[in-house]
Formats: sequence, structure tokens, C-alpha cells
Amino acid sequence: MGEFDLIARYFKRPVRRAALGGGDDCALLQASPGCQIAISCDMLVQGRHFFADADPFKLGHKALAVNLSDLAACGSRPLAFLLALALPTADETWLAPFSRGLLALADAHECELIGGDTTQGPLNICITVLGEVPLAGARSTALLRAGARAGDELFVSGTLGDARLALMASRGLTLPPGLLAKAKQRLDAPTPRVALGLALRGLATAAIDISDGLLGDLAHVLEASAVGACLDTSVAATLMACSSAELDAAVDAETRLECVLGGGDDYELLFTAPPAARGAVEQAALASATRVTRIGQIQAEPGLRLFDARGAPVTARYRSFDHFT
Amino acid sequence: MGEFDLIARYFKRPVRRAALGGGDDCALLQASPGCQIAISCDMLVQGRHFFADADPFKLGHKALAVNLSDLAACGSRPLAFLLALALPTADETWLAPFSRGLLALADAHECELIGGDTTQGPLNICITVLGEVPLAGARSTALLRAGARAGDELFVSGTLGDARLALMASRGLTLPPGLLAKAKQRLDAPTPRVALGLALRGLATAAIDISDGLLGDLAHVLEASAVGACLDTSVAATLMACSSAELDAAVDAETRLECVLGGGDDYELLFTAPPAARGAVEQAALASATRVTRIGQIQAEPGLRLFDARGAPVTARYRSFDHFT
Repeated sequence: MGEFDLIARYFKRPVRRAALGGGDDCALLQASPGCQIAISCDMLVQGRHFFADADPFKLGHKALAVNLSDLAACGSRPLAFLLALALPTADETWLAPFSRGLLALADAHECELIGGDTTQGPLNICITVLGEVPLAGARSTALLRAGARAGDELFVSGTLGDARLALMASRGLTLPPGLLAKAKQRLDAPTPRVALGLALRGLATAAIDISDGLLGDLAHVLEASAVGACLDTSVAATLMACSSAELDAAVDAETRLECVLGGGDDYELLFTAPPAARGAVEQAALASATRVTRIGQIQAEPGLRLFDARGAPVTARYRSFDHFT
Repeated sequence: MGEFDLIARYFKRPVRRAALGGGDDCALLQASPGCQIAISCDMLVQGRHFFADADPFKLGHKALAVNLSDLAACGSRPLAFLLALALPTADETWLAPFSRGLLALADAHECELIGGDTTQGPLNICITVLGEVPLAGARSTALLRAGARAGDELFVSGTLGDARLALMASRGLTLPPGLLAKAKQRLDAPTPRVALGLALRGLATAAIDISDGLLGDLAHVLEASAVGACLDTSVAATLMACSSAELDAAVDAETRLECVLGGGDDYELLFTAPPAARGAVEQAALASATRVTRIGQIQAEPGLRLFDARGAPVTARYRSFDHFT
């Protein structure tokens, strides 16, 4: 199977939104009048982001999901994506389920595959996704990291920490099979919060997707917005998808908090909104069928302060993920 | 050096054309009214597209050049690009020259780095480039592979085959040092024909950039345009950048023709235009300071016919490049 057969067999779809789809030197995309194009790019590397034995269907899903999550964090509607794929061999038993997982998620979000590149090499999946964000007059309606203001409330979507628990298991932590399966599901098949991101346009003052861990990504928001925050660790401790009973039997409270706060690979949204918008935030959560939890507050004083259920400071430090340290 | 330091030190630039540059979940790009966004993506893998000892400055240049070449082939003006980079280690002696080579070419084409991804892994450079193409009313002015018509003349820009000669040398062909250096320069530092691509808008009926080899890429044009062509191998044989005298002393005529026709890694433009436009094509070549050579003609009958200086058919077959065969 050659390069062009490979593309035709596993990745060719009818052209939908693009003015010109893959197969020429460039794809052509027509932006709607009064819109900006939002663009993001994520690369997944074998051995770093996934293991050699990763289920290719789930990997196809995840490779696009992590990119859609970036669009969600900007409140952008997905338009199209490009797939660059380095493969050791053109293995059909891998390509068929990979393309099914990838294109199922693409179809669910009406996000069109418009081009890319395929080459021989160590397995590497690089996706660039494009979305649109309406302009309100000359002003962008995109959700950005900058924009959080003192007094704003701090929210997260969905559940946090389970992906990290699955990673700990892969590094030696022993977990009961049922718990491990649930945690791995969160690691392997994250849900990009596109509908919530769209519902938060004009409502959230700042937003980011949690890919490197709650504390690390919150730090990006605080830095970009030049503010500080306090965060209730007793609420954070309730955020894992795996049930309390299962977790209590397997890991201590400190490990759970490390999973939620240090985390990584969650692909939930972290966002801020003024207290007056709390009802509207609840409506956005309902409308997008997405759980949203208030976990803290933005403060004028720089830095992040963790406190427990009794309001006492928590001093433990949790590192977020950095690829080169 | 961490991931964020790495980006700040080697790749951070002031935001210019983007509405929002790198550092948030997405970059935001505002397309001009009446324009389409052209998008292309190329991945370079160590061991496949370059060797482990490749000069990082030249590699930075080439990684962007091959993408700009795709924009050139569409007649698109470069706007911005995203860089996804997998690196074994954050090696500053590699990153500093790589970023200089990359950003020097980006600056020369006013093409803004607006985001991307960095991660640890086997060296892999994946660039997604965005350009704009004006609409004429509702009609795109992009140069496409489809559009060549019987009677059109067939042109190539610049020089062909030297990159292939350098590859042959890396696989055992012995060349004199002066010749090898010239050939390697063409392999390592291709020139994207952006100015020529822009000058050919409204003039060329079809265009493609030659990345897989003249015959292979011509086949794409013929297939997309549902036409055939004849090609003068005696003209093709004159297209190498290395001088005739140097080549005569080192390689036989058959090898030279294989380099030019089979080629690969040339990043020149192959395009078609009606005979009445020949003067305008010459003007476009002059205006963009780019050599352009007429090498054949489009014919109604499908297939490609090679002929020699005396008009006799040439039957040799030259394979173009496929990553998986």
C-alpha cells in the first residue's frame, strides 16, 4: 500500500465545508464574514503521550480530542483539521481502527479533514485544527487566558485526576481492575468540551483547557490575567470520576489530591466568571450537559492560595507537567 | 530548560499579523474580507527527510521552505505558521541555529509564527502554514492541480535534480567535492517560489510544487486535469543547477535524466499556461527574478509521452517518490 492509497483508503471523505479539500498543495478554507479563524496544533508521540500497545481507535479519538479541546477553551466552533502522520509501516490493522476513531469524533463535531501529510518514521500524530470565532463589531468573542478579574469565581468542567491515576498505575501503583479500567478510560478517551466552550462565549472572563494539570494551567490564567486566586482543595478532592468508595479502598487522600491538582491529560475547561453570572454559568452547564464545579475565586493578590474544608491553608506543592524538565 | 522557557527563548516573536499569537489555547487569525485561507502541512522526520547530522540552521530553513512551497504552488501569500516539534532533548546548540534558520525565512516572507507544540520524542518537525488567496467575486484565484487544458504549455521554475544527486551521493555515488557541495546546497536549502506563485495568479491554468519528482508531480496535474502531456527530455536534461561541465565529468547522461525526471525534494513549481500567455509568463518570471523553462505541452490524449531532441520517443521509466512503497 503506497502513500496515496493509504490516504484514499483510510482518510478520504467527501469535501464539505472547505472550498477545496485535501489532495492539492493546500486546502482552501473560506472563513465566514465577521469571523476569526482559531488555530491550534498538538503532537502526540509514542512513548511520551501513549504506549506502543495503545488501542488505535482510542488513539485516533484522543489525537483529535486534545485539539478540539483547545478550540473549546477558546469558545471556537470546529471547522476543519489537518493530520500529519509518521508511521513505521502502513499497517492496515492499525490504520483502519485509528481512522475510524479519528473520523467518528470529527463527524460528531462536523470538523472536516482537509489535508495533511503522511510519511514513514517513528509513530507521531500531529493534528492542526481550525475553528471560527465570531467578531462582535471589531472585538473578538474568543475566550482567552487573559481576562480573569479579582472577585470572579473559578470553575472547572467535568472530572479531574483520573487520567493521572491511570498514569500512576502504568508506573507501578497497584489498583483494583475495575478502578484501573475507569481511570484508563479517562486517560484514553477524553471528551473535548466544545459545547460548553461555545455556551461560555460572552459569559466567561477567561478560559483554558486543562492539559498539563489544574494548578499548572491555572497558573497560566493567573499570569496572563495578572491576578491571584484561592482554591478549595476539599472541593477539588471530590472531582475524580472514579467513585469515592473505590478510591478510598485503593489510594490515600494525598494521592487523590495530587491526581486532581497535579493531574494532566484531563482536557476539561478551567474558566472564570463574575459572581453575577453564576446562574448563567449553571444554564450553560445544563445546556451543554456538562458538569461544572465552582472550586475557588480570583483575587487581586498575585499567587495561588490553597485552603481546606475548614479554611486552613494547604501548603503541599504539586508539580504540573513540563515536557523537558 | 523547560518547555515554556524553550519556546520563549527560541521561538517567541512580537505578534504582528495575528489577532492573537501563540501562548493561548489557539492562535486567532483574521482573514481579510474577500479572501480564502490556504492551509498546508508537511512533516519532516529524521532518517527519512534528513540525517541525524543535518545542519540545524539549514533544517530550520528547509522545514518552513517546503511548506511555503505549497503556498507558492497555490498562488497564496504567506500569512502565518504553526510549528510542532518533537525533540529528544532541549539541546540549545541545536535549537539556537534551528530557530535562526526557521525564523530568517519566515521573516523574509513576512510569515508569522503563531503557535504550535513542543514535546519530547524522536526528532520530528511538523509545520502547518496558512496563506491567503483573494476571491474574484465568488471565484477563488488559487492555482490548482486541476485546470490544465490541451494545448497549454508546460513550464518549470528554477533547477531540478540536484537534490536527487545529493541523495544518490549519500547512498554511495561518488562525486567530486565541489559538485557534491552544490548538490547538497539544493537538497538542504530549497527556495520556495512564493513570488513566482503570486505572479502566476490569473495566468497559470494549473500548478503544483515538485516535491516527489517532476514525473510523479506532473502525473498529479494530468490526473486532476484529465489530460495528457508530452515532455522534451533534451530540455529537461539541461535543468540541473550543477554545471554541465561538472556533471559531464562525474555522472552519465542517464543518471542526470533520472535526477531531473525522478527527482524529489526540488520544491520548484510545475505549471501550465496557454500559448497566448507565453509573454506574460516571461514577465512573471522576470518580475519574480525566477528562471522559468518551457519543457512540454498538455495534450488531450491521456498519459505522458517523453521525447528526445530529435522528436523520437523515450521509453525509460522513472519512479517518483512514495513514502510507503
